[in-house]
Amino acid sequence: MKAELITIGDEILIGQIINTNAVFLAKELNKIGIEIAQITSISDQKEHIIEALDASTKRAEVVILTGGLGPTKDDLTKHTLCEYFNDTLIENEEILGHIEEIFKKYVNTPINNQNRQQALLPSKASIFKNDHGTASGMWFEKKGQVIISLPGVPFEMKSLMNQSVIPQLQKHFTRPFILHKTIMTYGLGESAIAERIEVWENNLPQTIKLAYLPNLGRVRIRLSSVGSDEELLKNTIDSEIEKLLPLINDIFVGFEDLTSLEIQIKEGFVNQQKTLALAESCTGGEIASRLTQVAGASEYFKGCAVAYHTQSKTDLLGVSAALINKYSVVSKEVASAMAENARKKFNATVGLSTTGNAGPSKGDSDAEIGTVWIAIATQDKIVTEKFLFGIHRERVIGKSVNKALELLMNQTI
Amino acid sequence: MKAELITIGDEILIGQIINTNAVFLAKELNKIGIEIAQITSISDQKEHIIEALDASTKRAEVVILTGGLGPTKDDLTKHTLCEYFNDTLIENEEILGHIEEIFKKYVNTPINNQNRQQALLPSKASIFKNDHGTASGMWFEKKGQVIISLPGVPFEMKSLMNQSVIPQLQKHFTRPFILHKTIMTYGLGESAIAERIEVWENNLPQTIKLAYLPNLGRVRIRLSSVGSDEELLKNTIDSEIEKLLPLINDIFVGFEDLTSLEIQIKEGFVNQQKTLALAESCTGGEIASRLTQVAGASEYFKGCAVAYHTQSKTDLLGVSAALINKYSVVSKEVASAMAENARKKFNATVGLSTTGNAGPSKGDSDAEIGTVWIAIATQDKIVTEKFLFGIHRERVIGKSVNKALELLMNQTI
Repeated sequence: MKAELITIGDEILIGQIINTNAVFLAKELNKIGIEIAQITSISDQKEHIIEALDASTKRAEVVILTGGLGPTKDDLTKHTLCEYFNDTLIENEEILGHIEEIFKKYVNTPINNQNRQQALLPSKASIFKNDHGTASGMWFEKKGQVIISLPGVPFEMKSLMNQSVIPQLQKHFTRPFILHKTIMTYGLGESAIAERIEVWENNLPQTIKLAYLPNLGRVRIRLSSVGSDEELLKNTIDSEIEKLLPLINDIFVGFEDLTSLEIQIKEGFVNQQKTLALAESCTGGEIASRLTQVAGASEYFKGCAVAYHTQSKTDLLGVSAALINKYSVVSKEVASAMAENARKKFNATVGLSTTGNAGPSKGDSDAEIGTVWIAIATQDKIVTEKFLFGIHRERVIGKSVNKALELLMNQTI
Repeated sequence: MKAELITIGDEILIGQIINTNAVFLAKELNKIGIEIAQITSISDQKEHIIEALDASTKRAEVVILTGGLGPTKDDLTKHTLCEYFNDTLIENEEILGHIEEIFKKYVNTPINNQNRQQALLPSKASIFKNDHGTASGMWFEKKGQVIISLPGVPFEMKSLMNQSVIPQLQKHFTRPFILHKTIMTYGLGESAIAERIEVWENNLPQTIKLAYLPNLGRVRIRLSSVGSDEELLKNTIDSEIEKLLPLINDIFVGFEDLTSLEIQIKEGFVNQQKTLALAESCTGGEIASRLTQVAGASEYFKGCAVAYHTQSKTDLLGVSAALINKYSVVSKEVASAMAENARKKFNATVGLSTTGNAGPSKGDSDAEIGTVWIAIATQDKIVTEKFLFGIHRERVIGKSVNKALELLMNQTI
């Protein structure tokens, strides 16, 4: 059971936006047992759209197109699909009413001719109303295959997928189960891991596919499998993981869940009635930002002092200038004081701090570029750890944030 | 002059990672006059790689593959390219020495057999040494076309592109110039904009391609053109923009530059010897995080108080509890006090604050979900603005951050 995605629009091809839609679509389709065989990003040109459709329908049962459904002249998807399916556009009264309603509610101007044309839709397609916009979703069937066209605006696409496309695909196709399980490791390169687990890997059942994903100091090991018996699938993967874990117990960090680390942290803190405060220096607010993306973060997250400038570590967090002078701003002692003072200042049960030198220049500390101290303060102790994250700013920040979230998971909940 | 990208590896197809490599590659290739015709993401399967190569080489002069070059068994790109070009692997002594050196320096263990195999490289390819890893870049030529294979790890890929691939492409091909100029607007939907600028759009020269990109409350209007005369290209686009601006002066926010807003803000503040402090509530540290991604942010950025919990607005920022009780935590008055107190607390010349209700539940304020106040305090005045950003958390946060950065640009530098 294969699907392919085709994204239409120059914005991806010129690097103006990141293809985040693909991530969402892939995850949602995997959840209902549909694998993605290929993702194709093309320009909004009729010939190229048709060529991509021809190629995709040779490989996959389901093809999802995103983009090119707007009201402006650069939007060609609807007309191209009409030509592809030898179809004509007819006015859809329900959709026209919906468009008028949206304009009355949010825009407060009458609809213009271009908006009205959004209600002209292919006669052969099933139409999905877009609650958050004026471009409808379309579902075409041809020789047992399904071709779906959705708007490219992420929010509108997601809502149409959840409300209409996923339920419809579930009804239309008998689908297998797909299971991915990802193990996070820290501290060993992929080749060294592969060497260590070679015998295990060679004895994996044929039905399990193994992949290594190195990035930002971590190597993720992913086991994937597809099958019609969900229970068997789970048991097979779980029993292989049970054999694997003893081989990597010194580098094992945890499982990468469908549930992100940020959500797991929220749930852990809320369940244990703990609260969190942060004092970020080199990570610049990124940890706070990641944690507060999760709805309900206010149930446990008190706040964060981004003490970027050395002086602000004193003014805002009350870390003594003498301590900073004695040990330097990137030190175990300052990290500890930041974590403990954040905990007290925000009246939280847990305080976490980062202080480091992300580069490219050395700033207020003599510490080697890439040096980062992370401290976690709780009511009865302070745990600190020192890291060397290399010389590249973006990576030092990224690795520090990842590591801080991991420590928060492992040390406090 | 067309290029295509092929990314190899399941991690994109199952939605485990975002294809950020494509953004970097597209931008860098556009800068040297090479357009991307298609981006294809496929699994690491030999047949699919060969099929994608066949299709891409029919459309483009340059094909860049990323991924599948690691030392583990799931990495098939090198062997597949060997087969595709009817080539054999030979040991490259220089690369072997480089791999040994990397292991000595960073890993401190002798190299194993899998690492050694990374030095086995196709005899017909030009080899690019990877300073940050053990997977080399490869450059194949066939009938005037160029096929390049790079590792998928973003950092290694970027460094190989900058050091080897871009200079080599510049030498190898005569290339045209590509120019994109993007105008940001705020406050009007794309169809209303299109209607307003219809006459202008209809009279655009054939050489200019126009696109509308709506997202998070903004519509970006992009003009793109390709040609051999750089000066003419610039003048044509600039003169069209000169005609466009008077038509949209009420919704015009600025130009989206290759230079991001964050970098422009840093440069503006540093040039004017201003400094910045933030007090973030609903944006949760995201503004601070965005600004501190830029190297040298410490030259103007003092810090940020993420006062997420109402109590912390008092404890950390000294906003009086009486003021919060009187006006509520999401109010003009509290936003003003947060911005002004942040400015004073961090001893900065400019203070910016956000306070709002990102949803999904109402929290400590009665304000309607989606209500956000942004305030900017300078030595002589405080400017405040109220926004209604809808009911969806992710969008409320995203729109607030975008708007705050825009206000920072327009109000203070």
